[in-house]
Amino acid sequence: MDARTPGRVTLVGAGPGDPELLTLKAVRALEQADIVLVDDLVSPEVLVHAPRARVVYVGKRAGRPSTPQDRINGLLVRLARRGWRIVRLKGGDPMVFGRGGEELLALRRAGIEADVVPGITSGIAVPATLGVPVTHRGLVTGVALITGQCRDEREPDWQALVRSGLTLVVYMGLARLPRIVASLQQAGLAASHPALAIQDGTRATQRQVAAPLSALAGAVEAAGFAGPCLIVIGEVTRLAATDLSTLCIGDAA
Amino acid sequence: MDARTPGRVTLVGAGPGDPELLTLKAVRALEQADIVLVDDLVSPEVLVHAPRARVVYVGKRAGRPSTPQDRINGLLVRLARRGWRIVRLKGGDPMVFGRGGEELLALRRAGIEADVVPGITSGIAVPATLGVPVTHRGLVTGVALITGQCRDEREPDWQALVRSGLTLVVYMGLARLPRIVASLQQAGLAASHPALAIQDGTRATQRQVAAPLSALAGAVEAAGFAGPCLIVIGEVTRLAATDLSTLCIGDAA
Repeated sequence: MDARTPGRVTLVGAGPGDPELLTLKAVRALEQADIVLVDDLVSPEVLVHAPRARVVYVGKRAGRPSTPQDRINGLLVRLARRGWRIVRLKGGDPMVFGRGGEELLALRRAGIEADVVPGITSGIAVPATLGVPVTHRGLVTGVALITGQCRDEREPDWQALVRSGLTLVVYMGLARLPRIVASLQQAGLAASHPALAIQDGTRATQRQVAAPLSALAGAVEAAGFAGPCLIVIGEVTRLAATDLSTLCIGDAA
Repeated sequence: MDARTPGRVTLVGAGPGDPELLTLKAVRALEQADIVLVDDLVSPEVLVHAPRARVVYVGKRAGRPSTPQDRINGLLVRLARRGWRIVRLKGGDPMVFGRGGEELLALRRAGIEADVVPGITSGIAVPATLGVPVTHRGLVTGVALITGQCRDEREPDWQALVRSGLTLVVYMGLARLPRIVASLQQAGLAASHPALAIQDGTRATQRQVAAPLSALAGAVEAAGFAGPCLIVIGEVTRLAATDLSTLCIGDAA
């Protein structure tokens, strides 16, 4: 460190879990970092690329005590002002439900240089582990990535989402799954509409259940899912590699 | 190669353009490949990771002659049956408008082992180069990735997409941009709704224009955009790094 050189912050996406899903650019940023501020969801193996950095954990896992966003923003600004090269390492992609935009704004307001190294987002990569493409020509014109963790006043417009016909990928939807399923059925999705829930995607501990929409919440509960979970709703889930059929549990109610 | 060993195919995402946005897993797949089947949109620098592989170009760029998908599928199957290790290298992510699902199905039907190494998708990474997050807490509950290249009968439901309130990211939307903009305005988006078009995202040749929706097509034409182009529509585009404001051209009609 040279205190006379202005510091800088790089927001880096660590990908969905598999440490090999880090980009070459992320590796280079980690190698050059003085300090790494890291989320709970990042695989510890990723940190081997930052052998000379001081590692600071600022966990942000749903339902557990975590560092408030304002404090993280403040910490980034203070450390950068001391001239350090900082990597802010996040699970997935920093700009997809990762609050990367909020951190960039805080840094920009403080006059600190910042950039982004994108990461593989779980909403696309995790279904791919099962052979499920989130888009498929002739079947869907696109995919919606949405958060299941939102305040009531910011509830997604499920009616519009269903009408859009897009594949729906819900991040952090586990806690509110019964309510999400009910909203989707009220919006017109059939009880038999195919769906998929995946826990710990791309990690050695990955598990999944396929079920018709109306049975999804029960299937997920029966499987004892907890922690990071991704929900995929749409015809594309039928394209899963055949051995997934053994995981189909429950019937349309 | 050993002809007695069954071959296998790995669909690999090369990311949006910057060769450093390749994952470690993609590099390993390329290093081990006997043959690489590659799209036009993949940066040539990516192929340095496959020094011992035979490289076959099967271009699939909009509006140019390219290898029909059926022929690519057939070629993958034939080569795999000869026992080769094949990497099918695609721009972006194989499962996002990349026809990865179609190739996986063809391989599965032929009894050939296949897997997917996800890539960074341009719809998320390219806005990030400008400081634009596709999701932003308090502003949007998610993002829709949609294709602008579709047959008439498969036109996206623009009404539903607008009503969803999601950030809209349109891949391959350049050729039909005036029509897409008209559809969005008919669906209720204001002429002044903020939008962004980016060409050659994450490459040294990247260029962008920010404009209110009604002026976007004109601005893109004035800038002479051609080739791979990404359209981002939504309030999040206002979060772009301040120096983007100098690129704002045109007024709401």
